[in-house]
Amino acid sequence: MKIKDMKTVLKIIVFLFCISLTAQSINQKDSTQMRSIYTEALTKGRTYNWLNYLSKNIGARLAGSKANEKAVTWAKSELDKLKLDRVWLQPVTVPVWVRGEKEEAHIETAHGNFKVNICALGGSIATSKGGLLAEVIEVKSLKEVEELGDKVKGKIVFFNRAMPADKIETMRAYGASVDQRYSGARVAGKYGAVGAIVRSMNLKIDNFPHTGSMSYGENTENEKIPTAAISTNGAELLSKLLEQKDEMKLKFYFKQSCENLPEAESFNVIGELKGSKYPNEIIVVGGHLDSWDLGEGSHDDGAGIVQSMEVMRIFKELRIRPKRTIRVVLFANEEFGLSGGKAYAAEAEKKKENHIVALESDSGGFTPRGFGFTANDENYNQVLKWKSLFEPYNIHIFARGGGGADIGPLKKDNNVLLGLRPDSQRYFDYHHTDADVFEAVNKRELELGAATMASIIYLFDRYGIKTGK
Amino acid sequence: MKIKDMKTVLKIIVFLFCISLTAQSINQKDSTQMRSIYTEALTKGRTYNWLNYLSKNIGARLAGSKANEKAVTWAKSELDKLKLDRVWLQPVTVPVWVRGEKEEAHIETAHGNFKVNICALGGSIATSKGGLLAEVIEVKSLKEVEELGDKVKGKIVFFNRAMPADKIETMRAYGASVDQRYSGARVAGKYGAVGAIVRSMNLKIDNFPHTGSMSYGENTENEKIPTAAISTNGAELLSKLLEQKDEMKLKFYFKQSCENLPEAESFNVIGELKGSKYPNEIIVVGGHLDSWDLGEGSHDDGAGIVQSMEVMRIFKELRIRPKRTIRVVLFANEEFGLSGGKAYAAEAEKKKENHIVALESDSGGFTPRGFGFTANDENYNQVLKWKSLFEPYNIHIFARGGGGADIGPLKKDNNVLLGLRPDSQRYFDYHHTDADVFEAVNKRELELGAATMASIIYLFDRYGIKTGK
Repeated sequence: MKIKDMKTVLKIIVFLFCISLTAQSINQKDSTQMRSIYTEALTKGRTYNWLNYLSKNIGARLAGSKANEKAVTWAKSELDKLKLDRVWLQPVTVPVWVRGEKEEAHIETAHGNFKVNICALGGSIATSKGGLLAEVIEVKSLKEVEELGDKVKGKIVFFNRAMPADKIETMRAYGASVDQRYSGARVAGKYGAVGAIVRSMNLKIDNFPHTGSMSYGENTENEKIPTAAISTNGAELLSKLLEQKDEMKLKFYFKQSCENLPEAESFNVIGELKGSKYPNEIIVVGGHLDSWDLGEGSHDDGAGIVQSMEVMRIFKELRIRPKRTIRVVLFANEEFGLSGGKAYAAEAEKKKENHIVALESDSGGFTPRGFGFTANDENYNQVLKWKSLFEPYNIHIFARGGGGADIGPLKKDNNVLLGLRPDSQRYFDYHHTDADVFEAVNKRELELGAATMASIIYLFDRYGIKTGK
Repeated sequence: MKIKDMKTVLKIIVFLFCISLTAQSINQKDSTQMRSIYTEALTKGRTYNWLNYLSKNIGARLAGSKANEKAVTWAKSELDKLKLDRVWLQPVTVPVWVRGEKEEAHIETAHGNFKVNICALGGSIATSKGGLLAEVIEVKSLKEVEELGDKVKGKIVFFNRAMPADKIETMRAYGASVDQRYSGARVAGKYGAVGAIVRSMNLKIDNFPHTGSMSYGENTENEKIPTAAISTNGAELLSKLLEQKDEMKLKFYFKQSCENLPEAESFNVIGELKGSKYPNEIIVVGGHLDSWDLGEGSHDDGAGIVQSMEVMRIFKELRIRPKRTIRVVLFANEEFGLSGGKAYAAEAEKKKENHIVALESDSGGFTPRGFGFTANDENYNQVLKWKSLFEPYNIHIFARGGGGADIGPLKKDNNVLLGLRPDSQRYFDYHHTDADVFEAVNKRELELGAATMASIIYLFDRYGIKTGK
């Protein structure tokens, strides 16, 4: 290396030193503001009371249901009370599916019947009124069904690949298994199966069946078959009994009366604080107001709803006047087709609104661990500089990749989508089941999530994003 | 800066680069081993079944109780099954305190009585058989009692300073409040109070009273007064009613029949894998086998017990032959005087054993977040080099300070004490109450803790510590 190069190296070092000094002075104000935000959320937070109301007084609120309408009215009225600059409802057309009567199921054997817990998957058709009884064939993958081909004809295909427990993030274990739920009936139906039973997306062995969306894809009416999730306990039992299938004369029976109804109208509930300096730069924070029809939708996504509302409340309460426009969006119908997210993005596109940042919380109300970012290098590098500000709050994960289903349609080349990353270990104990109730949410964990969201929204508002211009 | 200096800078850069290469090759083997450890714990782990047995078949196991004896027998037999090199019991003399009949308490007013939930604090004396009825004076600190002086005479002092919710780590909120529980009765008794009621160490508002140890210090027999914890709901009610004390003619009544009995014999349960290369360097991993007499002691400290046992099982199962001696110690009586930890350290001292490392898990079976280390600079810097190995498992906290009550007496100038740091948000929902039961523990969170402990024990075994020689 030449002396000239060395001089350049030294210049760079001095430059980096200066940057670090600037960063330090910025950080002092930011860390003070963040401390206020966390204190507000932990000592005077509203998330827990809001979630209590949403869970217990409204409860499960599938798109198109009466409860969903109640949730829209409640959310708008709570946002109104916050005295934001503007609160409004954005109409969204949503598909409607209803579960009907409680499902019934049992394993029929030569030694008697064994009752098991199932629930129809969202979008599934009903069985005939008397139910469906057929022999069972157990598989571990969609591919296995394709390989079996005609052999599944007239049978119930039982998808029983467990979520892989060795994944550290349970979301990855979910991603590795959920194709069975979403596409199992479509594939089995194509080969002439008469029903599809899917092991619940659950890492625990318990009695809760987990619902969730499924799709028949391009299947003909004939190829559409009823499908349901079975609890992990039920799946284990069925699999065990299938080992002696012939001797047992084993058949599976289930009955469900779910149906798809005509579309209905629902709403995205939106509130905003107008930016004082760059009102056209919009920062969104949100979650989805709908839930599945089991439990109370407290983690999924009641938590994200009340945390997003709390971000706005904290800005108002602490008199943080944003430079950019901050908008809370409580999306309609995420669970059954993403209608709210699509409608919101379509209107934003039509109005040529500039959404620079969108943050979603839709991974449960557990202790926040960090964020996942979908951003270009320049913007990702900017957020990495904020990481140390979050250290005192035990927020460590600033990962690449992530965002949320509802905000996905807002993605542009230069904007930033991010998702809150709560601890994922308990999420699938509750997800889409009767167990997803208010009592499963810890007050402090929920509040810490809200404070973490408010903090990063505060930073994005203060510093904006890099537009690459 | 002179050219000579620049050359030095460059040399340092090259040197740092070489170090990073070496570190990389070390890390490859270590990261592979750690992946195996986590997979073993998450897919074939025994912690959850062990904890189920310990919680449901043995349950609460206060030092000196029959259940504690059962726990000792069970733990030894489970360690025997692991075929360690040696398993033994170390006798420990423990104080014995029994709760007696379930406590009764109510707030007596002109408008009727309000029943509240209390539990005697560990070490407290009983009330008289008919119970104790007296006027109440509410305080927020020990100091306030000292300032009140004679005014507390004949009264029940009600310590009602809440745990501060704005602390991020709940352990710090506990540390900021627990003086009321430990010393409240001692101080109030000195000034002539007849009883002391302490707001439970709980960040939630609920109906569980939280027990825990207290001390009369050097108080005379006359200055010893009965003391109990009141649930946070009870504390809120009492405080509210006290606002209209005179109009209400408010008094507090409680009755408890607890007593201190003669000392008994218990045991530390110990198992070890002999080191192949440095058998005299001992690495301890442990928790405490006793619990309070409420609930099932599942988080406190059943979790730490089964995690410590699991570390040994994983070493055996994965055939990791340690270079140093690894010893699991399930300590007797942590809760009521630390007898096991003191006895263990005393014998180690007598035998001139060289304990280089001791790890304790005694903060609940929640998602592990990291460790707290009590170590000199040299050893702390060594563990910091391992931090990146833990990144894939979302273990981020490598803090200074920490260890555990039981291993505390093992501290030497150059050795390393460390404590597992699980997420702390839910700990005081359960701590020392009827709510600390098996169902409050999540299987994966428990397992991740065990794998995290096994991983750092593996690293300490592989690299030893810096002895500063």
